[in-house]
Amino acid sequence: MPRQPTPEDKFSFGLWTVGWTGTDPFGLPTRTVLDPWEYADRLAEIGAWGITLHDNDVFPFDADDAAAARACRRLKEATDASGLVIEMVTTNTFTHPVFKDGGLTSNDRGVRRFGLRKVLRAVDLAAQLGATTFVMWGGREGSEYDGSKDVLAALERYREGLDTVAGYIKSQGYDLRIALEPKPNEPRGDIFLPTVGHALALIAELENGDIVGVNPETGHEQMANLNYTHALGQALWSGKLFHIDLNGQRGLKYDQDLVFGHGDLVSAFFTVDLLENGFPGYPDGPRYTGPRHFDYKPSRTEGMAGVWESARACMSTYLLLAEKAAAFRADPVVQEAMAYAGVFELAEPTLAPGETAADLLASDDGFDPAKAAERDFGFVRLQQLAIEHLVGSPARGAAAARSAG
Amino acid sequence: MPRQPTPEDKFSFGLWTVGWTGTDPFGLPTRTVLDPWEYADRLAEIGAWGITLHDNDVFPFDADDAAAARACRRLKEATDASGLVIEMVTTNTFTHPVFKDGGLTSNDRGVRRFGLRKVLRAVDLAAQLGATTFVMWGGREGSEYDGSKDVLAALERYREGLDTVAGYIKSQGYDLRIALEPKPNEPRGDIFLPTVGHALALIAELENGDIVGVNPETGHEQMANLNYTHALGQALWSGKLFHIDLNGQRGLKYDQDLVFGHGDLVSAFFTVDLLENGFPGYPDGPRYTGPRHFDYKPSRTEGMAGVWESARACMSTYLLLAEKAAAFRADPVVQEAMAYAGVFELAEPTLAPGETAADLLASDDGFDPAKAAERDFGFVRLQQLAIEHLVGSPARGAAAARSAG
Amino acid sequence: MPRQPTPEDKFSFGLWTVGWTGTDPFGLPTRTVLDPWEYADRLAEIGAWGITLHDNDVFPFDADDAAAARACRRLKEATDASGLVIEMVTTNTFTHPVFKDGGLTSNDRGVRRFGLRKVLRAVDLAAQLGATTFVMWGGREGSEYDGSKDVLAALERYREGLDTVAGYIKSQGYDLRIALEPKPNEPRGDIFLPTVGHALALIAELENGDIVGVNPETGHEQMANLNYTHALGQALWSGKLFHIDLNGQRGLKYDQDLVFGHGDLVSAFFTVDLLENGFPGYPDGPRYTGPRHFDYKPSRTEGMAGVWESARACMSTYLLLAEKAAAFRADPVVQEAMAYAGVFELAEPTLAPGETAADLLASDDGFDPAKAAERDFGFVRLQQLAIEHLVGSPARGAAAARSAG
Amino acid sequence: MPRQPTPEDKFSFGLWTVGWTGTDPFGLPTRTVLDPWEYADRLAEIGAWGITLHDNDVFPFDADDAAAARACRRLKEATDASGLVIEMVTTNTFTHPVFKDGGLTSNDRGVRRFGLRKVLRAVDLAAQLGATTFVMWGGREGSEYDGSKDVLAALERYREGLDTVAGYIKSQGYDLRIALEPKPNEPRGDIFLPTVGHALALIAELENGDIVGVNPETGHEQMANLNYTHALGQALWSGKLFHIDLNGQRGLKYDQDLVFGHGDLVSAFFTVDLLENGFPGYPDGPRYTGPRHFDYKPSRTEGMAGVWESARACMSTYLLLAEKAAAFRADPVVQEAMAYAGVFELAEPTLAPGETAADLLASDDGFDPAKAAERDFGFVRLQQLAIEHLVGSPARGAAAARSAG
Repeated sequence: MPRQPTPEDKFSFGLWTVGWTGTDPFGLPTRTVLDPWEYADRLAEIGAWGITLHDNDVFPFDADDAAAARACRRLKEATDASGLVIEMVTTNTFTHPVFKDGGLTSNDRGVRRFGLRKVLRAVDLAAQLGATTFVMWGGREGSEYDGSKDVLAALERYREGLDTVAGYIKSQGYDLRIALEPKPNEPRGDIFLPTVGHALALIAELENGDIVGVNPETGHEQMANLNYTHALGQALWSGKLFHIDLNGQRGLKYDQDLVFGHGDLVSAFFTVDLLENGFPGYPDGPRYTGPRHFDYKPSRTEGMAGVWESARACMSTYLLLAEKAAAFRADPVVQEAMAYAGVFELAEPTLAPGETAADLLASDDGFDPAKAAERDFGFVRLQQLAIEHLVGSPARGAAAARSAG
Repeated sequence: MPRQPTPEDKFSFGLWTVGWTGTDPFGLPTRTVLDPWEYADRLAEIGAWGITLHDNDVFPFDADDAAAARACRRLKEATDASGLVIEMVTTNTFTHPVFKDGGLTSNDRGVRRFGLRKVLRAVDLAAQLGATTFVMWGGREGSEYDGSKDVLAALERYREGLDTVAGYIKSQGYDLRIALEPKPNEPRGDIFLPTVGHALALIAELENGDIVGVNPETGHEQMANLNYTHALGQALWSGKLFHIDLNGQRGLKYDQDLVFGHGDLVSAFFTVDLLENGFPGYPDGPRYTGPRHFDYKPSRTEGMAGVWESARACMSTYLLLAEKAAAFRADPVVQEAMAYAGVFELAEPTLAPGETAADLLASDDGFDPAKAAERDFGFVRLQQLAIEHLVGSPARGAAAARSAG
Repeated sequence: MPRQPTPEDKFSFGLWTVGWTGTDPFGLPTRTVLDPWEYADRLAEIGAWGITLHDNDVFPFDADDAAAARACRRLKEATDASGLVIEMVTTNTFTHPVFKDGGLTSNDRGVRRFGLRKVLRAVDLAAQLGATTFVMWGGREGSEYDGSKDVLAALERYREGLDTVAGYIKSQGYDLRIALEPKPNEPRGDIFLPTVGHALALIAELENGDIVGVNPETGHEQMANLNYTHALGQALWSGKLFHIDLNGQRGLKYDQDLVFGHGDLVSAFFTVDLLENGFPGYPDGPRYTGPRHFDYKPSRTEGMAGVWESARACMSTYLLLAEKAAAFRADPVVQEAMAYAGVFELAEPTLAPGETAADLLASDDGFDPAKAAERDFGFVRLQQLAIEHLVGSPARGAAAARSAG
Repeated sequence: MPRQPTPEDKFSFGLWTVGWTGTDPFGLPTRTVLDPWEYADRLAEIGAWGITLHDNDVFPFDADDAAAARACRRLKEATDASGLVIEMVTTNTFTHPVFKDGGLTSNDRGVRRFGLRKVLRAVDLAAQLGATTFVMWGGREGSEYDGSKDVLAALERYREGLDTVAGYIKSQGYDLRIALEPKPNEPRGDIFLPTVGHALALIAELENGDIVGVNPETGHEQMANLNYTHALGQALWSGKLFHIDLNGQRGLKYDQDLVFGHGDLVSAFFTVDLLENGFPGYPDGPRYTGPRHFDYKPSRTEGMAGVWESARACMSTYLLLAEKAAAFRADPVVQEAMAYAGVFELAEPTLAPGETAADLLASDDGFDPAKAAERDFGFVRLQQLAIEHLVGSPARGAAAARSAG
């Protein structure tokens, strides 16, 4: 059992995570809802550093300005009192039926205007609550039927909306960056910006793209059958990893939002390894320094006890994997195996300094493909070292550690 | 049965498609191999306009320069004689064991240099054969194990390789554009640039990205559980749809490379609709005008008769779907249903001309969310119209029947 | 556009299908709910023959006996008046939080007893309403975590529950058969009896298995990446295809419940072909003669107009595909292609009458594998004939065009 | 690092696993092939107890009887000398082009007769080599197109073939049981008997089904998006778990055949837990006592060093997980959490002894659903205990254990 989390770990939770009451497509709530400040207090107690929220996690969709302000004030007082940061704020443009065809890309222009206004107001709220990241998940921006959406128009509207919001942030001088959250499907059949790649590609077309990055979620990339750690890698390479949503998913099915590590554990190990230790070949390379944010759901089979157990489990697993990853990297046998596998060699440019394509073509370096093909990369051995670090020594198991803990 | 294909249809086939002999992970070839020029002759006969090829579809990996040149000359003579265009050339950096860890991103720098040289030589070949597109599919650029690749280094090497190749094309004054072909997996566990989105995101970071676009393949996007037509849409929106690979795939499994239309037929209908008729809301919007290229495999249960039947089937299905899509768009009932669904409305900017975020926030347009939420979008009806156009009898089509109904 | 449906077509709809109000994991209802009898009337109007229901589609979970009886009577009067059959009844053992860990296989024995009692009461209701099929979908019978369920115990409890229910049906002399509905996941991470295969295997172990069969749902099998038509085929082969749930699904994601034909259209064509025309090699072979039942959801972007359009679309597509399938089978060119492909040949036993394994081993029939391997099966051509029948103009169909070609 | 494997662990490997030379759909072999006996010697050295083989792993498809016998004799001498058991034999009815449409279910009756004869000969070989299990993987029994196969006929031929083979085994008095190996796809688009469920359902229809069971492969079930441990559970419940194929798979893609534990590690943990410790609620319940057989492929990036590393890794991971699973079960905190979660409670029948459905209906046990719904099952906590047992104490990691090992 790992050490207790501290604020330095920068763990944060969405209010909607511990606050999920268990409604699913086939079932009614299994838990009652608390007031937002009640979750905050409790999260602070178990070691979280921050919380995150949608506007309508704090006040209802149809609250008037005074009621909304009152609720926000009360939450802010609670978080301040418990020493929690409100690190990220986002808008809910998916629950109310008005958003059934999207917020920024609804075929209905009136809805789009309403949606954009709601997003802008949430930006003000984010600034006011001291958040530094504004996540935008366009869960309803998509379609079930190819004929029902003009994809060019949808991307034009997405661009318009994002540039408007980003421009507004700049114009107001807010210390806030936007992080787009990709997802391939659910609740729509096909969501626009289905993966980190698509979001990065769209950002590259924005006028105000400098303050727009991504918020990759473990399960969302995995629902597109993709490698989450690779997604984080490409986002970091593009300088766009502004936020993360950690959780667990077991393959291609509905969005499970399991506890971090309760999905693909080996992938989670390498995710933490990247987040904590960076790229092997670039000691001074790009690093993620933002919150370790969990976007998960406590299974609806659990009562409130299980809610807090599950929140704790997210942090415990992260810390456990972080310790394992540190030991993995520090192990000289692993270092040797990485060198043997050529992991560091890949950081070396293919061309020599100043070498051109013509030079390369002209050069004859006596390369023998048949000979080179014989190289044993030792990838399986390296992976097995990772597994053995991850799974650890059985003689000194969890029970022992618990009694010592 | 649709009309015969003509060169104006710009149908092209990879030599490796009709030339596939049926080897798979569990089986030996079921067909014998012909010489490349034999396929070309036959493709011309059945109505193809062009062919495409890997360097090693024409000459063996270890051919010397003279033998390679001889084979290329012979092929070129054959295609010229039969009136075929060689519209695209690509390099094989995946078959030979030297590429087992990739060509441009192998952990072995010697291999990377060799791979890059092979690509550059194929660029020369492409120019010499008159091709205008140079496809790059990095099928071996990836990993099975997260620990075996430094993702940042891999993307750095990918960028270096692509910029070198694109720069070389420019320096030689070739009339050639690069088209990256994404694929999520197979033959590697996770391939870099797994989707059109990831490729577009990488292109945005290139120095010579202006001549680099994408070559989306139907089945490859579908192997990432994604919507192929949406992928084409985003590529067109980014001005990067340089080439296409049409085929069929039945869900999340090995790369099937079925005949176009033998996978997800409804998706194929909307793909052809987009390629032939463009975006509904943008009559003068971006259009794909390149080759209709098939990258498929004749099932290994077929003999040579089946090879040609399958090639014909790709073109027939495309033409059939094109006729159906034209009728679909021309049907006034469909036009009305699209208007009802707001499909054209999405092309209208959300903000009024000159309107700012502040204006929008200040405006009170009396929008009533509850009321707006009641809008019936009619998406299902529109989809059913598409299905009835696709399946129905065009002579007594949906519109006609409806007016009688 | 196909002909209007008639009662002879035996189309039926779940009350919960047209009655779905659009709640999903991320959104509130977009439609209001009608009384059950209102749906019934309307379904009769558009040509349905029957309806189906869960107990709690008609009366609330906590209704007392009198209220429940009143609601059922009122519904029965409405269906009688409109000439509708209530062909199938099922129990809801998934919505109420008490079932959060299952009904028949909850780890809580009290819940199991309560669940079993609720199922038995619904059996009485089914008999009373004149239904002939009692569907059991164990949507909550499963787990998210392997450690939380003893699989042997779960299967023991499933068997106990099913045998008890089937035994009760027999003891009461009801004219009712049970049909198990498999599903791989959602709302549980892994559901027991995930596919038709698993359900058939369980049925084979029952004491009262003679009145227990399966109710395969299009999308459910496809969520397990499987071929729905093959599932129907194996169920028919086992004599266990007691009911069907037709709908549409676009790949591996949440349970979409689209209109029949709005998912994999080619698969839908062959499904209808099997249901309407039976197995090609067995003119007198097993056939499905039960209801053509739709278990789908009208997209939540639609208002009530869209609800009825979507219900009509299910029937229209079925009838359209039925017409196409009939023409496909009747086309002499198709018959010839099926013979060429050996489709009928597969019905011939491998051994000659009376031949034993020893005889076969002893026989030397001069079989030359290399020669036999050259056989062109013509599968692609046969598939293309299917596509052209499906898509093409029946009036100037593939056969006609070919004879002219 | 776990202890060395010993013959008591009953680890076995297919000759085709370590003997795989790396050919894949896009690449040529990366390793050379050894003689079969060379693999056997080496497997014995690293601690394997047994080997398994296809007929054509030992002698070529077209070997004459004398050559085949010679090769088998030589292999048998080698295994005897090294103390290895040949525990399982199977037939290759997939590599030769003659089997392109299947062996037992090819549309070509001549092929079926040839295929059945080849299977029967391999049965003789199995008996002669002392194997006790005869695996049948019908990898080519399937289709790409629904129209190309009469599913009823295919299942009839499958039944005929299996009953013939099983009857032959009985008639010869061989001490041999058949184990069917399901797979959903690859190399065919859809394979018959796609999952353990479908195979069990077919077995239930056989005349000689008493000696026919299943051989579930980790990755194969996962390619159908299913839970492997649940598959083992249902097979054990049916008394049909005759053999297993352990390996690793990372989601829905081509058949990866990774090292055991290099796929879904948490699933692997629970698989080993079931195999080693049985069902929690049934101390005397059904157990798997057969070989721990690995059907994996050493990645083609590896040379021969990697081949042996990977074989060792399969065994190491298994042993490591076995030790973890033992500690997990023995931990009193885990036992308490299992009791709290009701894991043992599920073994208790739902009905009291002698209680009937009528009794249950008549009884009023004062059950309050609202109250019962509040139960906290503690599944997440139990899962987190499993994760913490699996991942273990970081302070005492792999490096330390290695130096102690």
